[in-house]
Amino acid sequence: MKLATALKYVNKDIQRVEKKIKNVTKAESSMIQSASNHLLTAGGKRIRPIFVLLASRFGQQNQERIIDVAVALELIHMASLVHDDVIDHSMVRRGKPTVNKQWDNGTAIYTGDYIFARTLELLKPFKNHRLHTVLSNTIHQLCVGEIEQIRDKFQLKQNHFTYFKRIKRKTALLIESSTQMGAIASETDRSVEYLLKDYGYNIGMSYQIMDDILDFTSTEKELGKPVGSDLLNGHITLPTLYAMKDDQEVLGGVQAYFNEQEYHLTIEDVIHRIKHSHAIEKSYNISQRYLEKANQTLEQLPNNEPKKYLDDIAQYLSKRRF
Amino acid sequence: MKLATALKYVNKDIQRVEKKIKNVTKAESSMIQSASNHLLTAGGKRIRPIFVLLASRFGQQNQERIIDVAVALELIHMASLVHDDVIDHSMVRRGKPTVNKQWDNGTAIYTGDYIFARTLELLKPFKNHRLHTVLSNTIHQLCVGEIEQIRDKFQLKQNHFTYFKRIKRKTALLIESSTQMGAIASETDRSVEYLLKDYGYNIGMSYQIMDDILDFTSTEKELGKPVGSDLLNGHITLPTLYAMKDDQEVLGGVQAYFNEQEYHLTIEDVIHRIKHSHAIEKSYNISQRYLEKANQTLEQLPNNEPKKYLDDIAQYLSKRRF
Repeated sequence: MKLATALKYVNKDIQRVEKKIKNVTKAESSMIQSASNHLLTAGGKRIRPIFVLLASRFGQQNQERIIDVAVALELIHMASLVHDDVIDHSMVRRGKPTVNKQWDNGTAIYTGDYIFARTLELLKPFKNHRLHTVLSNTIHQLCVGEIEQIRDKFQLKQNHFTYFKRIKRKTALLIESSTQMGAIASETDRSVEYLLKDYGYNIGMSYQIMDDILDFTSTEKELGKPVGSDLLNGHITLPTLYAMKDDQEVLGGVQAYFNEQEYHLTIEDVIHRIKHSHAIEKSYNISQRYLEKANQTLEQLPNNEPKKYLDDIAQYLSKRRF
Repeated sequence: MKLATALKYVNKDIQRVEKKIKNVTKAESSMIQSASNHLLTAGGKRIRPIFVLLASRFGQQNQERIIDVAVALELIHMASLVHDDVIDHSMVRRGKPTVNKQWDNGTAIYTGDYIFARTLELLKPFKNHRLHTVLSNTIHQLCVGEIEQIRDKFQLKQNHFTYFKRIKRKTALLIESSTQMGAIASETDRSVEYLLKDYGYNIGMSYQIMDDILDFTSTEKELGKPVGSDLLNGHITLPTLYAMKDDQEVLGGVQAYFNEQEYHLTIEDVIHRIKHSHAIEKSYNISQRYLEKANQTLEQLPNNEPKKYLDDIAQYLSKRRF
């Protein structure tokens, strides 16, 4: 598989990232230690570090700083996941019990805060103020996105615009920052930095839309959580938006579920209906459109090895279907 | 009252702090806006900003930066309170419904995250790396203190050492940082900075112990929450530690309450018993000892107007009894 070779290319550095994450989250308190470790070993694809590392190969390689940027972005992602799981009352993530399930909500909230605080300490020594600017803006927007997600929960009055704005803040910006900060940390030309940033944004959007599709089309085993979890938790994503527009039954079913009213379709029926509707295809096409934009951006970048791997990732994502 | 004159002395700057807090927490999202505003108007004594401002008068006054430091410390305090209220299921703070009560836990968690993120953006332009070092260490320790507080909740196996370490992290360090960062931002001599830092630490410890006493000796109306809330929430503070040591009935009552067992005293009886025990006096003496240390530190500072006001605050705190 093509992704594997991209991973192999940065594998040594990913090992360093893993080690550093473990080090940074090391804590005097055994409780934080266990909770962070629990999070850490739950794994994840380390997509953000991979993007930082690949982007950094376009510039001068000041290894330690680049590793730190990669670690920081992964930690922020982890911290936001812990808080998300509390809010969604999620019991399982990647097949393992969540921190709020294994311990309690309080531990999960403070563990998130702690990881966040450690990230700040990690980045403090960086002299390049643009790294700080990009990162703090991203964290700011991420928080806004998270609050919007709560505001929009169980709300029927949403449109494509609300959805795109939200996933931009919740996902795409952090991927965009990964490629951009990798470029800044390795001091690439500004034009290369902007292309990498643009690639990251489009990949991030495409990725999140695919994730929202897979929430319907994948299996419980693969997802590590029930099929249709987003909708069950009151989150309206792109497939649901399309399906509600096309199919009165879906609209009625979602409406009834959100308002706790009776309806002749259960929410499981509605999920099944969305899964087998054209909404999936339509959403997929949008995801592909972002991927094409990412590819167009890639074409403008200098031809080198890391570019080949960024291309591989784009290819891989386009095949992540169903 | 003496505190009023200290307040009057920095009043103009406190107004600027208030205005800036409002500005910083201004958000595109109306939900964050309302939640932050709600927090903001719930007021608070703005103790941390007052300490920043008074400490800064020992050095050169670069007004804007000092205001920003004051705002940052108050915001971090606010962010940590929102998360605390979620964890303690608190419904009321300062006589107003908490964010988790008025909205929900999710909104409260993300509002805390958001305020925290905004604080980072505020401090980003500061070139003085010691401001960042002090602050990020304080935030780190604050998070550790918060997690320890959960770990120690409903735990009988605690001693004075656990308690002092916890309140240092939870309270004293943020007050210590207020005076120290006020000094750093106004570029005082290093010796003055360390004295101010030391004063802040001792005042912070004294203040928290008094707060823990008042939780027993004050009225529900004054506290804005039930008398004995700490113990009801499973937090063992200094008066409880002393009372459990001196009085088998208190020990038995707390034990039974924590283990949800039957006992001939209700937890309300236990709270009443602690309130009228020598444990209060003993705790008060410890608080006074920290205050004396703060006063001794003050004596070594140059004689000037702000010093008089720091002294007033110490005097005021010593009379905050019962």
